[in-house]
Amino acid sequence: MATFGDIGLAAGINILSALVFLIAFAILRLQPFNDRVYFPKWYLKGLRESPTHSGAFVKKIVNLDWRSYIRFLNWVPDALKMPEPELIDHAGLDSAVYLRIYLLGLKIFVPVTLLAWAILVPVNWTNNTLEKSKVTNKLQYSDIDKLSISNIPFGSNRFWTHIVMAYAFTFWACYILRKEYATVTAMRLHFIASERRRPDQFTVLVKNVPPDPDESVSESVEHFFLVNHPDHYLTHQVVFNANKLAQLVKEKKSKQNWLDYYQLKYSRNQSKRPMTKTGFLGLCGEKVDAIEHHIAEIERLSKEIAEETKRVKNDPKSIMPAAFVSFKTRWAAAVCAQTQQSRNPTVWLTEWAPEPRDIYWDNLAIPYVSLSIRRLIVSVAFFFLTFFFMIPITIVQSLANIEGIEKIAPFLKPIIEVSLIKSFIQGFLPGIALKIFLIVLPTILMLMSKFEGFLSISSLERRSAMRYYIFNFINVFLVSVIAGTALQQLKSFIHKSASTIPTTIGVAIPMKATFFITYIMVDGWAGVAGEILRLKPLIIFHLKNFFLVKTEKDREEAMDPGSIGFDTGEPQIQLYFLLGLVYAVVTPVLLPFILIFFALAYVVFRHQIINVYNQEYESAAAFWPDVHGRIISAMVFSQLILMGLMSTKGAAQSTPFLVALPILTIYFHKFCKGRYEPAFIRYPLQEAMMKDTLERAREPNLNLKGYLHNAYIHPVFKYYDEYDEDELTREKLEQESELVPTKRQSRRNTPVPSKISGGSSPSLPDVQENLQP
Amino acid sequence: MATFGDIGLAAGINILSALVFLIAFAILRLQPFNDRVYFPKWYLKGLRESPTHSGAFVKKIVNLDWRSYIRFLNWVPDALKMPEPELIDHAGLDSAVYLRIYLLGLKIFVPVTLLAWAILVPVNWTNNTLEKSKVTNKLQYSDIDKLSISNIPFGSNRFWTHIVMAYAFTFWACYILRKEYATVTAMRLHFIASERRRPDQFTVLVKNVPPDPDESVSESVEHFFLVNHPDHYLTHQVVFNANKLAQLVKEKKSKQNWLDYYQLKYSRNQSKRPMTKTGFLGLCGEKVDAIEHHIAEIERLSKEIAEETKRVKNDPKSIMPAAFVSFKTRWAAAVCAQTQQSRNPTVWLTEWAPEPRDIYWDNLAIPYVSLSIRRLIVSVAFFFLTFFFMIPITIVQSLANIEGIEKIAPFLKPIIEVSLIKSFIQGFLPGIALKIFLIVLPTILMLMSKFEGFLSISSLERRSAMRYYIFNFINVFLVSVIAGTALQQLKSFIHKSASTIPTTIGVAIPMKATFFITYIMVDGWAGVAGEILRLKPLIIFHLKNFFLVKTEKDREEAMDPGSIGFDTGEPQIQLYFLLGLVYAVVTPVLLPFILIFFALAYVVFRHQIINVYNQEYESAAAFWPDVHGRIISAMVFSQLILMGLMSTKGAAQSTPFLVALPILTIYFHKFCKGRYEPAFIRYPLQEAMMKDTLERAREPNLNLKGYLHNAYIHPVFKYYDEYDEDELTREKLEQESELVPTKRQSRRNTPVPSKISGGSSPSLPDVQENLQP
Repeated sequence: MATFGDIGLAAGINILSALVFLIAFAILRLQPFNDRVYFPKWYLKGLRESPTHSGAFVKKIVNLDWRSYIRFLNWVPDALKMPEPELIDHAGLDSAVYLRIYLLGLKIFVPVTLLAWAILVPVNWTNNTLEKSKVTNKLQYSDIDKLSISNIPFGSNRFWTHIVMAYAFTFWACYILRKEYATVTAMRLHFIASERRRPDQFTVLVKNVPPDPDESVSESVEHFFLVNHPDHYLTHQVVFNANKLAQLVKEKKSKQNWLDYYQLKYSRNQSKRPMTKTGFLGLCGEKVDAIEHHIAEIERLSKEIAEETKRVKNDPKSIMPAAFVSFKTRWAAAVCAQTQQSRNPTVWLTEWAPEPRDIYWDNLAIPYVSLSIRRLIVSVAFFFLTFFFMIPITIVQSLANIEGIEKIAPFLKPIIEVSLIKSFIQGFLPGIALKIFLIVLPTILMLMSKFEGFLSISSLERRSAMRYYIFNFINVFLVSVIAGTALQQLKSFIHKSASTIPTTIGVAIPMKATFFITYIMVDGWAGVAGEILRLKPLIIFHLKNFFLVKTEKDREEAMDPGSIGFDTGEPQIQLYFLLGLVYAVVTPVLLPFILIFFALAYVVFRHQIINVYNQEYESAAAFWPDVHGRIISAMVFSQLILMGLMSTKGAAQSTPFLVALPILTIYFHKFCKGRYEPAFIRYPLQEAMMKDTLERAREPNLNLKGYLHNAYIHPVFKYYDEYDEDELTREKLEQESELVPTKRQSRRNTPVPSKISGGSSPSLPDVQENLQP
Repeated sequence: MATFGDIGLAAGINILSALVFLIAFAILRLQPFNDRVYFPKWYLKGLRESPTHSGAFVKKIVNLDWRSYIRFLNWVPDALKMPEPELIDHAGLDSAVYLRIYLLGLKIFVPVTLLAWAILVPVNWTNNTLEKSKVTNKLQYSDIDKLSISNIPFGSNRFWTHIVMAYAFTFWACYILRKEYATVTAMRLHFIASERRRPDQFTVLVKNVPPDPDESVSESVEHFFLVNHPDHYLTHQVVFNANKLAQLVKEKKSKQNWLDYYQLKYSRNQSKRPMTKTGFLGLCGEKVDAIEHHIAEIERLSKEIAEETKRVKNDPKSIMPAAFVSFKTRWAAAVCAQTQQSRNPTVWLTEWAPEPRDIYWDNLAIPYVSLSIRRLIVSVAFFFLTFFFMIPITIVQSLANIEGIEKIAPFLKPIIEVSLIKSFIQGFLPGIALKIFLIVLPTILMLMSKFEGFLSISSLERRSAMRYYIFNFINVFLVSVIAGTALQQLKSFIHKSASTIPTTIGVAIPMKATFFITYIMVDGWAGVAGEILRLKPLIIFHLKNFFLVKTEKDREEAMDPGSIGFDTGEPQIQLYFLLGLVYAVVTPVLLPFILIFFALAYVVFRHQIINVYNQEYESAAAFWPDVHGRIISAMVFSQLILMGLMSTKGAAQSTPFLVALPILTIYFHKFCKGRYEPAFIRYPLQEAMMKDTLERAREPNLNLKGYLHNAYIHPVFKYYDEYDEDELTREKLEQESELVPTKRQSRRNTPVPSKISGGSSPSLPDVQENLQP
């Protein structure tokens, strides 16, 4: 049982480490040679130039201006200063609304904390149940427990305070949630209706085009929409299966990069032609002149790409049964996206097209029947992943012991046998398999979502986030509360009655308060402070910079801005909502720790969004219904276990009062769903018509067809074209001034899809991945 | 424990009573004076004349043609002869598809019965578990049990047969369900796209028109749709709150009827002017000349109606914030019904308009927020109704005993004290409260649905059917299987573990087989045979005919054709599906009894639909997804309890094989939902466009506005107009030939909404109810 002293010590350690992170960040961010690590967003936007361009060499690497160190916490007001509309403009609506989740945490929990400390803490403290039971039962208790519900005597009337508080907290949370839902809905509608014309406003994604023996997919699509939307159909873009082409383009890009490198090398040292080996990774095989070899390779690949492009564009088999159909007006696109086209509801499926850069191209051709089978497979797989993941890990752990290693690698025996190392390995090894699993878990979940067949990166991330939350809820929260693995719990819950489950959890909840306080400090405080330091990207950038960066372009690509990472970030926040809601009534001591997390995380992530993270797509806050729903489910869960806890405390007569709470909460959720969720799924015709009319009045001669012409072309074609143009520009530049690394400003300002945008995401097609071999 | 002999006796009694009903029906239906009881559908269609018109007096009442009695089962081939397309034309798609539910039962259970008797019965029979346990434990068993799963020894490998059979039955049922869903979907789409033009194809119901201080509802609707559907908007019809007007019209109709009666009476006996009293029901008050009094009353009411009509049409307060908006094409109506209009998804709600006669006018003005509160209230109320309905009934039962009656009505004491009567009352009274409750239950459920705010009679009936099924499932099926009231079960289930619930039910299932066999024979065989006899309508018709019928019009209205009664009929069928699916593997002996029910009910209801029931609305088989879903849920339930049963039989190793079954079934349901359900909710644009194009080519000069002009006017206005016209015709006729009761043929052929259509339904506005005071 932790006392105040223990908690204080833990708090001290974690505050200290958080401070160390923040100070280290404050110093490191001022060094020019870290500029690309801490301000990549500005580079991506083309608003910041490499500081290495001018000035003394030392100044390029270290900041010698002592005054800048004094104001080492300056970044905080900077991060908070940018107003929200500007933030939306700078980093997109998704980012701005993502930050509102932290604000929502503050809005809910600041009054809850104040109320709980003003009322619940005194009510709990002024009892002596624990002291008495210490005397009679020799029970150990801590000062923390004296502030919790455990200190109320059995069957006391004081429990009415807790019930009233549970109602108050629920009403407050619902009030704030409703207000926030309304705000986000308004922001989304305003954003969508904003001035900027976007291709997805006019475009509908048509899936499952039925095969026609007499017509190509393109003709079939055109005829269908000319017949069924005669006054509105504008143009369409078929979807090519360009995976092979993407592979070739990637290869060529890599070779081109090596060529640049060798040419640079040769130009620096003209005495020696650079050589390379043709085999695996340039390590074996015939030795040849590197520059000539690469020029020849590029030529070959260019030819192949040209052939493949021709093949893809002409071979009907490479055309997938899907298309992006564009309409003359937003109204018509909204109509087509919301209606059923054919009497067979599994063909001619239409949906609002995602933003071009948000599309996950690989999934566009999955047929309807296969989709539902995939969904079944993935849900079964996720069930097994959640409840049985400990089994393979236990097997790995039992194999990966000292004896196992000695058997496989006998030459390591003398080293391992050193007792210090031995004990280290024995203590460390069992954990490592689990750790590795937890690190790759988001990737596994993302793969599941991809297999399930979602069509946009944003929906992939949303689905992964849901799964990650469920996994965390079961394997982090429940497993921490009740001892035993998730599988054991599943077994025991199946064999227990429905009414004892909340009781079992409810009873264990107050006892785990100190554990979760420590968890919040480690994961929430120090973890978030560590996020701003970006230690991993920092190290990797400098390693890459030192060993691998051959050209200026490489440096640009070595820069890893990362992204918000909705699929892992949001479930983490949700865990804090869950903890806050569960402990608000039971152990209010925990609340201030959560408040600090929300405040710190808000500032840190606002800074990161402004300065670091790259915006990979814009879904216009499509994730809000999920966020709202998960908070509601945490509320219902907390109400159920409060009921369970009360029933063991001799306050069973309170059950009828508490039963109404989850019913009201679920009803509130249904109300919100009906009132606000449609704005996240459909595009109201009124809005569309308004925007259309405005545009028609303003730009009567707009060439919409030209505007939409290439919007939904597979990125590989676009990249390929762009790349070729690029090459020309570069060659021209190089003729003008050799040896000066060019900054192709033009490239950075190219509109969507940004070449770099896929850099850090695991979800864009391979084409856009790193060029390193 | 029932033996074959017991079952045989019960079967004999029920077959006998069924036969008695059928023979009685065969005789009664041939009597001309029963013609209106057994063939009202043909009267409603105007295809049959009153046989009382011509011929000898005796012949008008009794059929003396002995030859017709010989072929007393002739109605069976007659009922089966009418082909389905003709049936759809005659009685609507709803009726035709309703009959397919019985056919579906036959399609599923005929092969299942054959397979079960060929494989499961021998497997069960060739054991001696029950004989052995009779010797060792003195357990009683019956021959029926020897054919059931109870006869398999503990842990036997023979259980694999049952598991394989469970899979076979599931696959067969799913195969048939899928085929049937596809057929019904095709029928529905074909029906909707059929030649006949219907107003609902062009019309959308708009609810929650937001209030506008500057514009009336009508203007607001017109402006909104002119702006947002500029090329398609045609016209609209606002909804009036005409409840008071409907009341007045009803009153006038009644007075008019009395006037007719008195005039008839006076014309027969000119010596005495008929007199009446002005007070309550003509029993007290001043005595006046009846004819003059009624003429005066009618005049007054006519004036009031005219005033009220004027008021309703001019007072903006009597216009409800809803409207029927019609479009120029089916395409535009389909678009408007399927899309969201405004950025606030709780206003300007659009949905495909129901057929005019299907509309439940009273609910058109319920605002969005109120709707969701109503839904919450009704679901809570239904929960209490289901689990706590026994409490008031028990109270009533405890009050309504002999002593209670003697206290309230001491003058009855001498009669009650007679021992025979006393024992009869004591045995009868406790049941009567329950019986009365069960009789009014469908009405209560219908009231709940009405309160919930559904807009069409078809959806009201669908929702009531769902509730009635749940109520039956819990309070008939579960309560019969496990002793104790639903409330006691709920309590015990909450306190039991999730895994023991299927076990508890599963173990009890085989023991209740004989009970359910008897139930099927009583409710299914004799009950259905009783349905065709129409004893209640027969008696009521003749009573009315004798005592109340004053005019020919009254006779027409005394005829009570009834309707299919989806809200009570479908849940009854579903109970048989449930029994069949549950017992298919456990006690296959039950299956033939269910087969006989389905076959008998199919023939009987086909006859009733052709000859008796009035079609109240046409929802184009909108109920099929509900039917399908309930059969699926019965399948999943049967699989779960099979698992529970197996686990107690020492066949726990089979659980993994059985777990896959409900998962696959639910997955199958999801697939069907995605593949077929949209056809029941949306109108595909392709269909709409095809129909539009065809119509444009065929009738280029169609005056659609004229066609739709009065389609969605409140029935009271329509009735009123029609009624007035009627009066004129009648007066003209009366001038021509007094004393001859007129058959206004014209009235019978008037299109929707048929005046009579609401006669037997509790759901149409009061206007159309019976005229009797």
